[in-house]
Order: sequence, then structure tokens, then C-alpha cells
Amino acid sequence: MYDLAGADPSLRFSPYCWRTKMALAHKGLAVETVPWRFTEKDVIASSGQGRVPVLLDGDKVISDSWEIACYLDEAYADRPALFGSGDAKGAAFFIKRWTEAVVHPALVRLIIADIVKIVDPKDAGYFRETREKALGVSLEDYAAAKEENMKNLHAALLPLRLSVKDLAFLGGAAPSYSDYIVFGALQWARCSSPQDLLPADDPVAAWFDRLLKLYDGLGAKAPRPAAA
Amino acid sequence: MYDLAGADPSLRFSPYCWRTKMALAHKGLAVETVPWRFTEKDVIASSGQGRVPVLLDGDKVISDSWEIACYLDEAYADRPALFGSGDAKGAAFFIKRWTEAVVHPALVRLIIADIVKIVDPKDAGYFRETREKALGVSLEDYAAAKEENMKNLHAALLPLRLSVKDLAFLGGAAPSYSDYIVFGALQWARCSSPQDLLPADDPVAAWFDRLLKLYDGLGAKAPRPAAA
Repeated sequence: MYDLAGADPSLRFSPYCWRTKMALAHKGLAVETVPWRFTEKDVIASSGQGRVPVLLDGDKVISDSWEIACYLDEAYADRPALFGSGDAKGAAFFIKRWTEAVVHPALVRLIIADIVKIVDPKDAGYFRETREKALGVSLEDYAAAKEENMKNLHAALLPLRLSVKDLAFLGGAAPSYSDYIVFGALQWARCSSPQDLLPADDPVAAWFDRLLKLYDGLGAKAPRPAAA
Repeated sequence: MYDLAGADPSLRFSPYCWRTKMALAHKGLAVETVPWRFTEKDVIASSGQGRVPVLLDGDKVISDSWEIACYLDEAYADRPALFGSGDAKGAAFFIKRWTEAVVHPALVRLIIADIVKIVDPKDAGYFRETREKALGVSLEDYAAAKEENMKNLHAALLPLRLSVKDLAFLGGAAPSYSDYIVFGALQWARCSSPQDLLPADDPVAAWFDRLLKLYDGLGAKAPRPAAA
């Protein structure tokens, strides 16, 4: 699996790659991850697109974390299901949409100035240019108003907070793909920024901690950048 | 089933009661609804609390729309499931939390001044007093800034919009309890306010329309208040 990495190849911070790494662990499938940088489009050209995760399974090449999750549940139907049923898959799709439309934008304001510092030198220009073009402002201006951005993040997480206050995982007692989708967002922040974004007494922090510890601490063991 | 009604008993506008009415229809269970007003706490005292929906099924008295949905899937397991699996139930719980934490607050600013006009005269004082105490401002002040409130609603619905743009229902091809939770919110607005809150070209409007037509037009047939 091609996995986004920083200048330090041990920093693996793509939210989408984290979804896939957790999904593979959930299914008990071993995987070799290959560090990949934003500008190495040629390396994954066989997938027909330019983003990771890209999973190679035998002669199959699958891209897009959602497509990979669907593929894994079909190809390895005898292993623990990522989606318990058709309508669980639909609801997970809603959680994906919520995560990408609400949680990612709230997080990116807080961490983008840190991400710039860890990307590979050959990616730095590409990263800044594409993001500033999309945002219409400099990354530093975008990340200003830290206190307000932190408040926005905590407000954005309210539906998650209210859910995991009463349930161990989004799907109930056991983790499922919905958890990995939202986990990916917070793990993206954890692996790209030295900031701590969640108050210790936030039920979201306790839920995130439960996920970090899963699969022999797969998430917890992932290196973080040192504080400047 | 006790069902919140206005001065005009045909106006049935509780979002929680709509969840239950759709759930009962989904399971193919006939129900007699009894109009109930906010201040008729004594009528539902046997449920041990003071809100509707309250469902009477034989000698059972069940309150809380979520508890009722869980009860229906257990007691009528041979009929179409509201929750396809355990993790679908968990994800529906997240959608419930999102609806109540994000969609309800966005809607209430737009419709609360209309709700005041349709509640039963005996409820009017109770309704205004409890709401103004909770909000800390007059209902009229709370509902000011209409244009901004409308923008907020459309922004709040983004994760739903992105989901139902690609799927007929939140659970996929067929409706499930997750749909009824969000449907209840928009039907609350439709049955308490003459305003049209969704642009005709919004995928959310098309999804809402699909839900209005289900079960022989159960939602579509529900009377709305006339414009002033």
C-alpha cells in the first residue's frame, strides 16, 4: 500500500491512508506500506489517478479509501466485516460526508501550518501552491485566529461527542469502518502536528484513545513530529 | 400513539412523533394517533415522563422515539427492520445526534415564530416561557436575521446533501430509520411553518420529497399551516 509520508519517512499523516490501515488491521490482513510523496504521481500511475491510498492486492490495484473498504469486505467476506449490513454502509457513507465536510475543514485550519513543516522538500512547493490556490489565501493567513479555530473544532465535534459519550464506538460495542473514518481525521492531526487538540476530559479524546490502542497500538505507535 | 398537535388538531408537527409515525409505517403497523398538547402532562403520566411520542402497544407503554424504534425492531422482528444490524444502529445513533445537535438548532431559528402561531392557546404561554428561558432571549429576537439563519441551515445540511446526492436514501437504495430521523426534522418545519426552506434544486429537497411520498404519501398528506 502506498502511504503518504513526510520528509521523515516515519511520519505517515494522510487521513485517508489511516482509514485503510485501520481497515486492513480490522480484517486481520498484513500489509507492507511504501512511503509516497505528493509529487510521485508516476509511481501510482497504474491506479489511473494521483492520490493515496493505493492498495496492491495480487494483480489488483485499488485506489480511494472508500473503494478499498468496499473491496476488502467483498474480497475477504470471511473476515470481520467493516460494514455490518447494507444500511450500515449507507450510514457510514453519511459519516464519511460529515467528516470530510465538517471535521476536515475545522482541522485543516489548525494543522496546515504544521503540515508545511513536515512535508518532503520536493513536495513543499506543490503542497503550498495547490492549497493556497484552493483556499484563496496564504496558508499562514488561513491558520490565523487559532483560538477561534479551536472553538470551531470543538463545536464541530459535538455530534461525535454526544455519540461516543454513550457508546464505546460509533457502531456500538465494537469498532467499525465509521470509527476509522473519523479516527483518520484526528490521526492526521496527531501525526502531522505536535499540538494537542482535544481537552483530556472530552469524551472524543477517550474514544480516540480507544482507537489508538486497537490492533496492538497501531495508531498509538505512529510517530508524531516533535514540537518546534 | 400520543402525537403533538396544534390548536388545529390536524397540524402534527413534532419531529420525534414523525420519526415514530414513519417507523410504524415502515414496519407495516397500523396506528391510531391521539392529538396531544404540550401541557397535557397528566394524559401521558403512565409513561413516567412528559413528552411525546408515547406509544401504547397492548399493555406496554413506551416513550422516547429512539426507545420506540428499538422496541419495534425487537417486538416485530419478522417485519422490515428499521436497523439492518448492530453497527447500522450505532451509525443511526450518530445521525440522531447530528440531527439534534446541528439540524434542529438551525431549523428552530427559522420556524419558532411560526410555531408560536399554531400551538394550542392553552400551550402558548408554556411554550413561549420554557423556550425563552432556555434560549435566554425573546422568540422574536431569536428568529431575527432570517437571511443568515437560512444560510446557516443550508450549510448545516451539507453532509446530508453530499450523501443523498449519491444515494436514494441514507441507508442506500431503501429507507431506514436514519432517514426518518432527519426527515422528522424537515417535516417538523413543513408542518409548523408555511415557509419553504429548501431550494428546489437542492438534492436534500429531492430526498425529502422521496420520503414524503413513502407509505401512500403519509408525510405529503399531512396538513401545513396556511401562509399569513
